[in-house]
Amino acid sequence: MFTELKSTVGPQGLADVKALTFDVFGTVVDYRSSIVAEGRRLSAAHGVEVNWGDFADAWRAGYRPAMERAMRDDSSWVNVDAIYRAVLDDLLERYGVVGLTEEQKVEFNFVWHRLQPWGDSVPGLERLRARYILATLSNGNVRLLVDMARHAKLPWDLVLSSEIARAYKPDPRAYRMALDLLDLQAGEVMMVAAHQYDLRAAHQLGFRTAFVMRPLEHGPHAVPDLTADDSFDVVATDIVDLARQLGL
Amino acid sequence: MFTELKSTVGPQGLADVKALTFDVFGTVVDYRSSIVAEGRRLSAAHGVEVNWGDFADAWRAGYRPAMERAMRDDSSWVNVDAIYRAVLDDLLERYGVVGLTEEQKVEFNFVWHRLQPWGDSVPGLERLRARYILATLSNGNVRLLVDMARHAKLPWDLVLSSEIARAYKPDPRAYRMALDLLDLQAGEVMMVAAHQYDLRAAHQLGFRTAFVMRPLEHGPHAVPDLTADDSFDVVATDIVDLARQLGL
Repeated sequence: MFTELKSTVGPQGLADVKALTFDVFGTVVDYRSSIVAEGRRLSAAHGVEVNWGDFADAWRAGYRPAMERAMRDDSSWVNVDAIYRAVLDDLLERYGVVGLTEEQKVEFNFVWHRLQPWGDSVPGLERLRARYILATLSNGNVRLLVDMARHAKLPWDLVLSSEIARAYKPDPRAYRMALDLLDLQAGEVMMVAAHQYDLRAAHQLGFRTAFVMRPLEHGPHAVPDLTADDSFDVVATDIVDLARQLGL
Repeated sequence: MFTELKSTVGPQGLADVKALTFDVFGTVVDYRSSIVAEGRRLSAAHGVEVNWGDFADAWRAGYRPAMERAMRDDSSWVNVDAIYRAVLDDLLERYGVVGLTEEQKVEFNFVWHRLQPWGDSVPGLERLRARYILATLSNGNVRLLVDMARHAKLPWDLVLSSEIARAYKPDPRAYRMALDLLDLQAGEVMMVAAHQYDLRAAHQLGFRTAFVMRPLEHGPHAVPDLTADDSFDVVATDIVDLARQLGL
């Protein structure tokens, strides 16, 4: 199995790929810097001192346990906007950010709709789009991903979200939904992500995989796990490098 | 009720609209001319005489009964590619087009993925996109709509299809799926279509509606029903005119 996979690693083995599905938070957009920048404007306006880097890390880190809690407690679907809002309310209290109106909290929570892309994301996607269908495959809700794409000028052909499958990655149903709607076999789709768990889940279903290293996802002082699995078909330093490795 | 609606007709009453959802076949793309052009190339290559205008009309007209039959006979979902293919097989026989290989039939059936836009569609959509989220809301399957958008350079923010709802327009579930994924109220979304039944179904759920007249949808000799209902918020001669009436 492993030998067979290794023999097809590299662009020459990826000729069947017709679409790329992208993880978004961390892989395509730099949520940490975006939150720090908006947080600092909030500090300036409200005279409150916050370490916004820590705040951003805690906000992102709180999303998975809050999501798991929400999905366990509530039989209906809870979207990522609502999940981030629950974490935000806890963090505002913990960091002593008081006096925000409900409207201001809603506005700040929507920073996730206004995240900035990494510098290579738009030029890399533009190159890849010449040959491949480009889709998101994110746990972010559809509206969030649409707002983000309009704001950051991300040239998606198609916005796909766990929301459509009503199952969050790494649940296999999220990846299968993408195959269904793209009308492609798993071997014709490459999952692109900065997170190993996401690529492993896609690989299990037969997707091709590209690991994009994002050493700064958690800020300049963090040491993220940049170890590539043997199963990854491509390991790229960024999205422009991914395009280059795919011959674009 | 009607008085209330009438009092908000016109751009000044449409300030809440944040997204436009578009019917596609006939409204945005000119399927008839596209099929005639590809059919003529088929005639030239295979030496077969066909009235491709009639053929195109019959292909389109066959889609709704075939869809209804497929949905009745088969409890699983049948997509529009499969429906058009079933109609195509009948028509090739009826029009005496023989000798096509399976590969050629598949290729011809995919003409629906390569349809040409009306001349005003791309410039009109580009203008509208400055203010509104633009989404398809078509009975075409997602992959068809993505291929078409790449081919015709249609600048959708989001591809929505009855396929996601597993219910074909005018089933209310198709329109509700769009509201769910856009995270908008019905009054914040305007359905744009060249077909009254589609707008009436959307209006029933509270959507705003724009009727785009397409007198040539069925060719130069047909007389389509261009009667606007009182319930339509905007009646436009094309998509550029729609943009103009919305102040763009």
